[in-house]
Amino acid sequence: MTTDAATPQSHGKVAVFSAGSWGTAFSIVLADAGNEVALWSRRPEQAEAINRDRENADYLPGIELPRGVSATSDVARALEGAEVVVLATPSQSLRENLAGWAPHVPDDAVFLSLMKGVELGNVKRMSEVIAEVTGAGPERIGVLSGPNLAKEIARREPAASVVACADEEVARRLQARCHTAAFRPYTSVDVVGCEIGGAYKNVVALCVGMAVGLGFGDNTTASLITRGLAETARLATRMGANPLTLMGLAGLGDLVATCSSPLSRNRTFGEKLGQGMSTEEILASTRQVAEGAKSCSSLLALANSWGVDAPIADQVDAVVAGRTTPFDMMDAFINRDPKAETD
Amino acid sequence: MTTDAATPQSHGKVAVFSAGSWGTAFSIVLADAGNEVALWSRRPEQAEAINRDRENADYLPGIELPRGVSATSDVARALEGAEVVVLATPSQSLRENLAGWAPHVPDDAVFLSLMKGVELGNVKRMSEVIAEVTGAGPERIGVLSGPNLAKEIARREPAASVVACADEEVARRLQARCHTAAFRPYTSVDVVGCEIGGAYKNVVALCVGMAVGLGFGDNTTASLITRGLAETARLATRMGANPLTLMGLAGLGDLVATCSSPLSRNRTFGEKLGQGMSTEEILASTRQVAEGAKSCSSLLALANSWGVDAPIADQVDAVVAGRTTPFDMMDAFINRDPKAETD
Repeated sequence: MTTDAATPQSHGKVAVFSAGSWGTAFSIVLADAGNEVALWSRRPEQAEAINRDRENADYLPGIELPRGVSATSDVARALEGAEVVVLATPSQSLRENLAGWAPHVPDDAVFLSLMKGVELGNVKRMSEVIAEVTGAGPERIGVLSGPNLAKEIARREPAASVVACADEEVARRLQARCHTAAFRPYTSVDVVGCEIGGAYKNVVALCVGMAVGLGFGDNTTASLITRGLAETARLATRMGANPLTLMGLAGLGDLVATCSSPLSRNRTFGEKLGQGMSTEEILASTRQVAEGAKSCSSLLALANSWGVDAPIADQVDAVVAGRTTPFDMMDAFINRDPKAETD
Repeated sequence: MTTDAATPQSHGKVAVFSAGSWGTAFSIVLADAGNEVALWSRRPEQAEAINRDRENADYLPGIELPRGVSATSDVARALEGAEVVVLATPSQSLRENLAGWAPHVPDDAVFLSLMKGVELGNVKRMSEVIAEVTGAGPERIGVLSGPNLAKEIARREPAASVVACADEEVARRLQARCHTAAFRPYTSVDVVGCEIGGAYKNVVALCVGMAVGLGFGDNTTASLITRGLAETARLATRMGANPLTLMGLAGLGDLVATCSSPLSRNRTFGEKLGQGMSTEEILASTRQVAEGAKSCSSLLALANSWGVDAPIADQVDAVVAGRTTPFDMMDAFINRDPKAETD
């Protein structure tokens, strides 16, 4: 269960962009599943170090990379002959980066997004950005989402995930290419549900982190997780998602893992807010940026544009922008009028 | 938010059976909400100590009880004039105890069950036992369920819960009687959903505890929580529950709080199983019994009788009975055939 897959199937080539912690961890899954993996790194010296040391010391120190992974900083070489192009870059830089990579992508390659954010401003989902930049149809765009903290995946701890594509047959092909003894992907056709679940959970994790930072316990955080998932599901289903997706690994599962883990940047960012630091102070003290702190105002705007009530995004946005405090946010949640749960 | 409700409404009398940790913690909520609370204790010396020290030193040491709570060991006195009878006794002793109390219950009193178990053998829900023993109709039986770890409620940390009754107006009356500045009850008419969610989560918490005991991380536990909730929802909806109840505080919320908390007996019991202890060894080393270890075989039988697939209850039952190991249980989960998430 915690070792390499005993008898990997032999698949073709997969290109992974780029060699951050999640891209590298998922490269291990892909190699274990029998793919030939080209892991792209912007910096030639990082690619060389990965190939020489069999380790990505910057992002996954101490984890030995399997033989099936080889790194390169050459975009054309990474993409030559690739049947699947895995995208794991920062959400806000996808559009610009992908425009440079797209000319090298083989015509029939399928894209698989590992990204869990939305493009700010116009609030595009990552699959929408991929479609706009590359012209690929929905049958060539998949997304993978679930409770998948990179360091645990890299250690081959058992985990499950959802691989979604509008074309179910493509989803099944992608599933086969990343199913290992430790990593269990389920198929889905609900791209919107997976993407909204993945993006919105960062906002909920910020909120949960604030409660933890204020010193509250497991009842409080469990209540916030529950109401946060209800808020996520309201928006996603209004946008056409299947409500069962939000009850599943890409909704509830990802949300619980993120809100439970001290490895989560969003939860950690929220904890610091709860302890009384301002957004500016936190940003000044850390080089890691929490996705939810950037995207909460965009997701709130998205919910508003669909006419969906979003009290958690509303309050988190107000705290991040300094218009309210975490304590007053909690007070606002608990002191609303009593009502029925499913109103 | 963490203080007594500033302006409690004045309600009538509520009797609470009995003075364990959850019964005592909920008595604080009831007194904060303006009720006169008679807290019954089987042992006269415990009742005297509670009244003298304003503290239930056995179960909630260090927590000062509000003036609205007075303890008694006299059943008739506790129930005289009670408008609401709150039941928080061990699930397996409810039937016998309630038979003794029932003759003293005022004819129009409403029962509110705080219990989260099922009666073994015939697998009755607690509301069913109340109906059978007292002859009360569904409009006189409510249940309260949610992410409500007793010690956190007693400390007046913010928490939410669901109060369900087939009669919505009665649910609203019960809601008003326990709504405080820190405790936020939502109404529901889904008694079955709340009760199955509350009972089944103990089995899932055992399973999550085993994964923790084996050393697995947040991806694994989040995946088990997700699949456990899906299993719970399959059974509950087959029995007539509203699926939204399971996505709510009495389903997801209670499950997440229980699986996250080191205060949870079921999770702790599972951790010890995961570390290699047998059920007999754990029982010999602790006086506290985990509800899920007793009820997993009954809940499995219930699922089977409704034709519902219950792999988690099945595996947990096998581990508790010594027919398999936690490691082999995890292996069975991860190595099933790949499939679609919502099959």
